[in-house]
Amino acid sequence: MRHHFSEQLDVVFDDLAGLAASVQTAVRRATEALVNADGPLAEGVISGDADIDARRDRTEEKCFRILSLQQPVAGDLRTVVAALRMGTELERAGDLATHVAKVARMRVPGHAVPDDLAPVVARMAEIAVEMMGSCGEIIAGRDVAGLVALGALDDEMDELRARTLTALVDGDGRHGVEAVIDLALISRYYERIGDHAVSVAKRVAYVVTGERP
Amino acid sequence: MRHHFSEQLDVVFDDLAGLAASVQTAVRRATEALVNADGPLAEGVISGDADIDARRDRTEEKCFRILSLQQPVAGDLRTVVAALRMGTELERAGDLATHVAKVARMRVPGHAVPDDLAPVVARMAEIAVEMMGSCGEIIAGRDVAGLVALGALDDEMDELRARTLTALVDGDGRHGVEAVIDLALISRYYERIGDHAVSVAKRVAYVVTGERP
Repeated sequence: MRHHFSEQLDVVFDDLAGLAASVQTAVRRATEALVNADGPLAEGVISGDADIDARRDRTEEKCFRILSLQQPVAGDLRTVVAALRMGTELERAGDLATHVAKVARMRVPGHAVPDDLAPVVARMAEIAVEMMGSCGEIIAGRDVAGLVALGALDDEMDELRARTLTALVDGDGRHGVEAVIDLALISRYYERIGDHAVSVAKRVAYVVTGERP
Repeated sequence: MRHHFSEQLDVVFDDLAGLAASVQTAVRRATEALVNADGPLAEGVISGDADIDARRDRTEEKCFRILSLQQPVAGDLRTVVAALRMGTELERAGDLATHVAKVARMRVPGHAVPDDLAPVVARMAEIAVEMMGSCGEIIAGRDVAGLVALGALDDEMDELRARTLTALVDGDGRHGVEAVIDLALISRYYERIGDHAVSVAKRVAYVVTGERP
């Protein structure tokens, strides 16, 4: 029974790592749509979210099956519940990728991001993609060594977001109101995607070490 | 055993209703801090978030105890897991209240919200407070009759958020860049608080009816 439990759990964690990879792809494509003002690509990210939702649902069902049939207690119980929550958070990060895509779509054929802010937004996006990738590796390997690097990326993300807002204020209206609104929200979305990556990775750490990091 | 389960579950749902009430208070106070540029009040909301977190932790522990000791299956299992998730979402709504308070604090002694937009922001805040209150009632009574009204409030919230962004764009820079950033984020925070209220209420509906609404 215990052996069976651990095998079923491996399947769930593989699913979750796959979910993180899908979210990573969604973030990458949403950013591409944003940078290139690519309406069809934005549309693809938005419609593709249903697939992420469906995968999350299937993983959840596996978790419920484990809980019902194996009746785990103590650490095993917490691991399965942590997996359920990781699925919820990854799905939410996928939603945030669609929010980025929706901003891109709204401004097509124009660009939501002004030229002078394109580099800082590109770097935020790059970090979000990297964080989600690292999150996926942490899940797949149940190896939390990557948690420190993830924290450093999260700090850089916060810094870039602050820098974006400062640049908007210093621009003193030069960027136009729509661009200011878009960037205030986009930078928030990337930051939140990063937050979810950290949060999911911390849940893995909790599962592995039994302690909240 | 079954009887004991149902009693323990009642305690958890009462806790969750209490949590919703605390979040409601946090949203109300954060808004007061925002409208009156009241730094100490904003500070109080921010430091008070630890209390919401602690209450969520205690409720979670009760859920884990039920899962471990009662080993519920089928609908009962899903109810306890739903309760765990409701706790997570309410805690997150509390975080969003602190985000509103942080915007207020950042602009003190100034006002984050320009005079001409004060009424629409006040109405968004009012709706968020009402939605969280209604969410609490739905949890406490496990009565999902309020779900329809909640949906109507959610629609009004979306409309007000769109109206706020349009007013900023039409203002054509008159509001200043900081105000545009603040309002883009504040209106997002209130909207998300409302989303959490709806989501939690839907989880109650799922628990009561066994079907996703």
